[in-house]
Amino acid sequence: MLFDMIEQVPRQIADVGIVGGGQLARMTAQAAIPLGVRLRVLAARADDSAAQVCADVVVGSPDDAEVLSAFARGCRVVTFDHELVPVPALARLDAEGACLRPSTAALVYAQDKRWQRERLGGRGFPVPRHRVVSDGAEIAACAEEYGWPVVVKTPRGGYDGRGVWVVESASEAEDVVGGLTGQLLVEPWLPIEREVAVIVARRPSGELATYPVVETVQVDGICHEVVAPAPISPEMAVRADRVAREIAEAIDLTGVMAAELFVSDGEIVINELATRPHNSGHYSIEGSTTSQFEQHLRAVLDWPLGSTALTAPIVVTVNVLGGPDGQDPRNALPSALAIEGVHVHLYGKDARPGRKLGHVTVRGDDVPSVRERARRAAAILAGTANEIVGVSR
Amino acid sequence: MLFDMIEQVPRQIADVGIVGGGQLARMTAQAAIPLGVRLRVLAARADDSAAQVCADVVVGSPDDAEVLSAFARGCRVVTFDHELVPVPALARLDAEGACLRPSTAALVYAQDKRWQRERLGGRGFPVPRHRVVSDGAEIAACAEEYGWPVVVKTPRGGYDGRGVWVVESASEAEDVVGGLTGQLLVEPWLPIEREVAVIVARRPSGELATYPVVETVQVDGICHEVVAPAPISPEMAVRADRVAREIAEAIDLTGVMAAELFVSDGEIVINELATRPHNSGHYSIEGSTTSQFEQHLRAVLDWPLGSTALTAPIVVTVNVLGGPDGQDPRNALPSALAIEGVHVHLYGKDARPGRKLGHVTVRGDDVPSVRERARRAAAILAGTANEIVGVSR
Repeated sequence: MLFDMIEQVPRQIADVGIVGGGQLARMTAQAAIPLGVRLRVLAARADDSAAQVCADVVVGSPDDAEVLSAFARGCRVVTFDHELVPVPALARLDAEGACLRPSTAALVYAQDKRWQRERLGGRGFPVPRHRVVSDGAEIAACAEEYGWPVVVKTPRGGYDGRGVWVVESASEAEDVVGGLTGQLLVEPWLPIEREVAVIVARRPSGELATYPVVETVQVDGICHEVVAPAPISPEMAVRADRVAREIAEAIDLTGVMAAELFVSDGEIVINELATRPHNSGHYSIEGSTTSQFEQHLRAVLDWPLGSTALTAPIVVTVNVLGGPDGQDPRNALPSALAIEGVHVHLYGKDARPGRKLGHVTVRGDDVPSVRERARRAAAILAGTANEIVGVSR
Repeated sequence: MLFDMIEQVPRQIADVGIVGGGQLARMTAQAAIPLGVRLRVLAARADDSAAQVCADVVVGSPDDAEVLSAFARGCRVVTFDHELVPVPALARLDAEGACLRPSTAALVYAQDKRWQRERLGGRGFPVPRHRVVSDGAEIAACAEEYGWPVVVKTPRGGYDGRGVWVVESASEAEDVVGGLTGQLLVEPWLPIEREVAVIVARRPSGELATYPVVETVQVDGICHEVVAPAPISPEMAVRADRVAREIAEAIDLTGVMAAELFVSDGEIVINELATRPHNSGHYSIEGSTTSQFEQHLRAVLDWPLGSTALTAPIVVTVNVLGGPDGQDPRNALPSALAIEGVHVHLYGKDARPGRKLGHVTVRGDDVPSVRERARRAAAILAGTANEIVGVSR
C-alpha cells in the first residue's frame, strides 16, 4: 500500500496539505513553488493531475478516515481540492486537533445545498425560494406555487450540472424521482439575465479580499467561459461583491470561496458556493496581481492577502472540454501557442468527451478580440476547431 | 545509489530533461506545469532547489558522463540549468544522439570567455579589446596599451563576480596571477554608463524573439536589481536588441540566452553571455506576457515563441541576497507579502550571507515607487530591512 510510506519514511512536516489531487491542487502546487510553501497532496491515484507535478504526494483515499487522519498529522494546515470529504471524517480530524481551513462548518455550506439554503436564507441572504420534497407529487405541489418549470436538485454531490434537473411537468417529476432515493430540493426556475461569480478570500485573523465580479457562461450546467470583469452595472457589481463578503463572514470562511450568483429580475440570487479555488477564478493566474491559488495559500496560512487588481482591462478564460474524438490536447499545443497572448493550462487528464482538460486565458483591451483568441485556442486544444467556434448564450 | 532508479524503474520518457537542480530549473518546473510539459531534473542532491518541487527528479552528478548519458536517454530534449557541464561529456551525448538544446557549440560561447571573445570579435561583434596572458608581466604589458586599471578574468567558470579582478598595478597583477594557474583574459577597464541585458529566445526552426532591454544594477559583480524597460534611448535599445539577435543567429542558439551588455562611451559592448534563462529575465515571470522560463521550454521543444510584451509600464526585480545574520527568508515571508503588489520567489536554499535566496518583482507605473516596494520587500526577506534600504550606483 503506497500510503504506508507516510508512516515508514519520516517526512518533513508540510506547511499545507491538500486533500485531493485534481487540477485545483495542481494549480495550487504551481503557486506554492515561488512562495516556498511546502505542499503535500493526498491523491487517490499516483497519476492524478496534481500528483504528476508535485514533489510530495501521498496516495490514498480521501474518503478513508484513517488515511485522512495520518495525512493530517503530517501537515500544519489541511485544505481541500473539493468539498466532498465526508463530514464524519472531517469531524474526526477536528477531534484530533487538525487545523482544517476551511473549517468543517464552512465546508458543509458547499457540501449540502439544503443546509446552505436554509441557513443562509434564515439569515436574510438572497437564496432562491426552496422546499424539500421526497416524491413527484410534492414537486408538483411546489410547481403550483412556483409555476412550471421547477428546478430539482440533489442536496449533495452535484457539480457541473449533475444532480440538477429542470422539470417541466408532473410526469417529468415522477421520472426524475424514480431514479433517486432520499430528499430533493425544489426551487423555482429563475429567469437568468446573467450568471456571475465572486471569488472571496478570508484569513483566520479576519482580513478579507474580493476579486472583481466575473461573468460565467454556462452550457448545460458546465462553465465554458469566464469574462473579467463582468459586463454589469457598477451598482449590481457592488451588490454581488457585498453578498460574497457577507457570506464569507457568516460562515467564518478561511481560504478562498467562489460565490456563484444569478442576476435575475434585477436581483442577485445565490446559486452555488464552493469553499475552495474555483473554475470561475482561473483567469486570475495571469489576470490578477495575486492568483486565487496564491491567495488561497496566503489565506489558509493566515498570511496577508494579496492585491486582487486585474492586470489588464479584460481577461477571458475559456475551458478546454474534451471533444468528441478524444483528442489529447497536448498534441495540439504548438498550434494553440501560435495564437498571440494565449496562456494555456493543461491538467494532465485523459481526454474524454466533455471532460475539463484545461483552460486558456487571454488578456487584452476589448472583449470580442480577447474572447475570439481564447475560444480559438481552446477549440484547437479540444480538437473541435473545425466546428463552429462559439458558445451559444 | 539513487540514480539507479532510472535504470531499474521504467519511467515515461520526459519531454524535457534539465541538467542541474538550481533555481533556474525550479522556475522552469513552475512554467512546465500549465503547459503539461513532462519535465525531469538531474539534481546533484535530493534537496536541490528544483528537486524540492519537481515530481520527476534523478539524483546524480551532472559532471559524470555516465550519469548524463543515462539521463539523456530518458529525455526527448536535454537542456541546462547552468553552462558548466564539461565539453567532453557534452560531446559524448552528441555522439549518442541526444538532442541538446542549446547545442554544445552554443554552450561553449557561454562556458569559455576566451573562445567567445575571439570568435565573436572575429565576426565583427562589439567585444572588448582583449588579450590572453600567462603572467603578471604580460598583464602589465597590456596595461601599457589599455591603461591601468585592467580587468583580468579566468576564461572559464567565473560567475557573480567570481573569476574577475580589476587590477590597478603591476604588483596587483602579480598577486592575482600568483593564486591562479592557466591562461587569463585581460581587457581594458571600461567606463560603464549602464549595464543592460537582453533576453533572446530562438527555436530550431529559426523563429527568434527578444525581450525589452533591461537595466541590471550590479554590486561587486552580483546582480542586485533589474529594471524593465531600461532607461536608455530608443536608438541604444535598438542597437542592444540587434546585438543580441545577431549573436543568437551567429551561435545557432536554441533556447533562451541572456546577453549582458555594457553601455560604454555611447557604444554597446558585450560583457557576458548565458545560454539559459537568466537572473536578468526573472522579472518576466509576472512582467511579460510569456515568462523566460515558458519561452525556454517553447524554444527547446521547437514550439511557437510567445509574446514578450511587458504586462505593465515598469517592472522591477530585486534579488534577495542572504543577509549577515543568515535569516531564512521564509520566516519573513508574511511581512514581505504585506507590501502591495509584491511577487515573492524563494528558491528553497539554505541562507548564507550574499547567496541568492530568491527575488521579488513589482509591477507599476513609475520606477521610484515600484523600486521602493521591491527593495523594501527584498530587505525584509534578507533580514536587512533595518539597514539603509538602497543600492549604491
